[in-house]
Amino acid sequence: MPIDEARSKFYSALQLEKLDAVYVPTEEALGLVTAKPVIAERDSPPFDRSAVDGYALRAKDTFGASQHSPETLRLVREDDVRSGELREIWTGESMPKGADAVIMLEQAEKIGEKVQVFSSLPTGANVSRKAEDIEEGEVVVEEGERLKPQHLGLLASIGIEKIAVTGRPRVALAATGSELVPFGGKFEPHRIIEVNSLILSGMCSELGAEAFSLGIAEDDESEIEMKIREGLARADLVITTGGTSVGLHDLVPKVLEHIEPRCVIVHGVCMRPGMPTALAVIDNKPVIVLSGNPVAAMIGFEVFVRPLIGHLLGAKDTSRIKIRVRLTRRVAGALGRRVFLRVRIFEKDGRYLAEPVRAKGSGIITTVSRADGYVIIPEDREGLRDNEVVDAHLF
Amino acid sequence: MPIDEARSKFYSALQLEKLDAVYVPTEEALGLVTAKPVIAERDSPPFDRSAVDGYALRAKDTFGASQHSPETLRLVREDDVRSGELREIWTGESMPKGADAVIMLEQAEKIGEKVQVFSSLPTGANVSRKAEDIEEGEVVVEEGERLKPQHLGLLASIGIEKIAVTGRPRVALAATGSELVPFGGKFEPHRIIEVNSLILSGMCSELGAEAFSLGIAEDDESEIEMKIREGLARADLVITTGGTSVGLHDLVPKVLEHIEPRCVIVHGVCMRPGMPTALAVIDNKPVIVLSGNPVAAMIGFEVFVRPLIGHLLGAKDTSRIKIRVRLTRRVAGALGRRVFLRVRIFEKDGRYLAEPVRAKGSGIITTVSRADGYVIIPEDREGLRDNEVVDAHLF
Repeated sequence: MPIDEARSKFYSALQLEKLDAVYVPTEEALGLVTAKPVIAERDSPPFDRSAVDGYALRAKDTFGASQHSPETLRLVREDDVRSGELREIWTGESMPKGADAVIMLEQAEKIGEKVQVFSSLPTGANVSRKAEDIEEGEVVVEEGERLKPQHLGLLASIGIEKIAVTGRPRVALAATGSELVPFGGKFEPHRIIEVNSLILSGMCSELGAEAFSLGIAEDDESEIEMKIREGLARADLVITTGGTSVGLHDLVPKVLEHIEPRCVIVHGVCMRPGMPTALAVIDNKPVIVLSGNPVAAMIGFEVFVRPLIGHLLGAKDTSRIKIRVRLTRRVAGALGRRVFLRVRIFEKDGRYLAEPVRAKGSGIITTVSRADGYVIIPEDREGLRDNEVVDAHLF
Repeated sequence: MPIDEARSKFYSALQLEKLDAVYVPTEEALGLVTAKPVIAERDSPPFDRSAVDGYALRAKDTFGASQHSPETLRLVREDDVRSGELREIWTGESMPKGADAVIMLEQAEKIGEKVQVFSSLPTGANVSRKAEDIEEGEVVVEEGERLKPQHLGLLASIGIEKIAVTGRPRVALAATGSELVPFGGKFEPHRIIEVNSLILSGMCSELGAEAFSLGIAEDDESEIEMKIREGLARADLVITTGGTSVGLHDLVPKVLEHIEPRCVIVHGVCMRPGMPTALAVIDNKPVIVLSGNPVAAMIGFEVFVRPLIGHLLGAKDTSRIKIRVRLTRRVAGALGRRVFLRVRIFEKDGRYLAEPVRAKGSGIITTVSRADGYVIIPEDREGLRDNEVVDAHLF
């Protein structure tokens, strides 16, 4: 099935809502996603205040003042500035009554209890007006925004101490394959170290989801079923790796159909790598069956899991950053399949060039670890031309 | 002083080396920076193994086989395949003696103890050769690489359980200003909530540094000195915010000169915002004196602190991702100063457009929280033209 059709069938079989909101302290919210618009509860500034260090005064007292013919005003300390007077004021300090402008220290010179003013100011000069930045009731951060340091600063500046963010999606990862041994155990040269749960849990964590591993299931239907049932009970989304090829051990889709008949919506997608991907829905929870090949599993995650996590988070955008790149050589595609070509990107003469990463062998995990991103070769193209300008999605 | 000159003077006054390496378990190394090249300790694959589920056989026994005239071979279970024989094999399993190719399950049909083979294979077909992905002694991840999920997967796949990464730089943050109150305390409308330490510690943490706050110093020389001395004792890098303008409270540079005469290398930089930035070196530790204005502090961090943290980490590249954007309107620059213009970026007809964010008031923290990145207006330009194509640095 073509990718777009697979995605649309899968998503229409799911009634997926974003996860419930939780309140977290503003200082712990970096990277989380706002669950609703954040509304200002007060004006900012809360009153008229000075934007500079200087002297608060009446603008009309400075009319005509210049470097060569300064006006001389009288320094006062009262919180009421009358005509002919000025008062010292710091950045952020509230404006004294009567004053409507602030002259900067550099444009004034204090001589005893007098101050010479060397510049003519308009009304309001160097004054931050009450509510000019933010009005009470205004949306200061939109819903679905991933919080950056500056958002936290903004929210803190107006006294917002807790923010409603979407809970982290829980993702259960089950690896299948009798040939697998867990990472960190004793090295057995004739078995393969299971690395997909490490890679995919890293990808989840980069997106703001929390992954946990269910361990390895042997190629045995009841063992696989147990893992999937555990995943469904504990997580918002279940991912399996391995056991989905059309080969001898094509077990996972079979087990899924056993758990719930007709739950497998898609089995086999026109993409490379990742052809044997399967997508199922059980109890309105998505189960994504990825290839055991780490690169195919990563690309399957990109295509099917990344948008799902974005949806569970209610995030405005979870797609990777795209940049325009120029290919350094022609590459072959695969008519009828969408190809995800890993590329290394470098800058030359102010332009980005993308060099396809050559696979040395079949264990193509080195092609992603050496790559900076991927380029898509569409289904209807036999390949991409040398020097062709395309989008690269950055890892 | 122009930015480039300030940077070069500051860096030459520092003999900054990257921090010491620490060993962390591979599964905890996401986002950390490799302190040395990671070398493979074994071949991958460790032996010849099958890349598919199928039957291991001798390629020459398949010569001439096709859909219409299959070759029939005898199924054996021994770990030694002779001419005319084949053996079941799974993906990843080691090749049995005598076999030099694998036929995929889909291209064969088992009938009792015989298997019909429908395709002619070259020697080595569907076999992953020993060491074809990675050779023992090869560099698999370079020094200075920020570890992504796929790097961890690669390292785990060849049994590397601990990785030498650079320790996290410790950054001490001190805010100065008698007008400030700490975030989270009681709201006092006539004072300003201190948010720079929240913003800057978020920026540090995004880069992989660990920031801690020294709290707020009143506008008092001995209090400021105490904070800076504490920062120098506990951190690799000290940042202060506030107290650096040319105004009444230009205290921090004065305190620094008191701690160590002539330690202030730069005071005042031709940039907007961020003009009153100062840079000092004490005991070979960098002290960066940023404006108290949150936006100016952020831009000062971008320009002076970001590359320093990259250097302490020994990271290959810590600059922000740049994309080419087209401005939606002309903007004024400031001849002789480098201007950092905050922009909102959106996609239209496959192109990125950048719209300058207008500041409503002076408390321009909303201009960064609404922005997706910034565009630089060079010192020698009066402004940028409507529709001009420039680089945007992404937040």
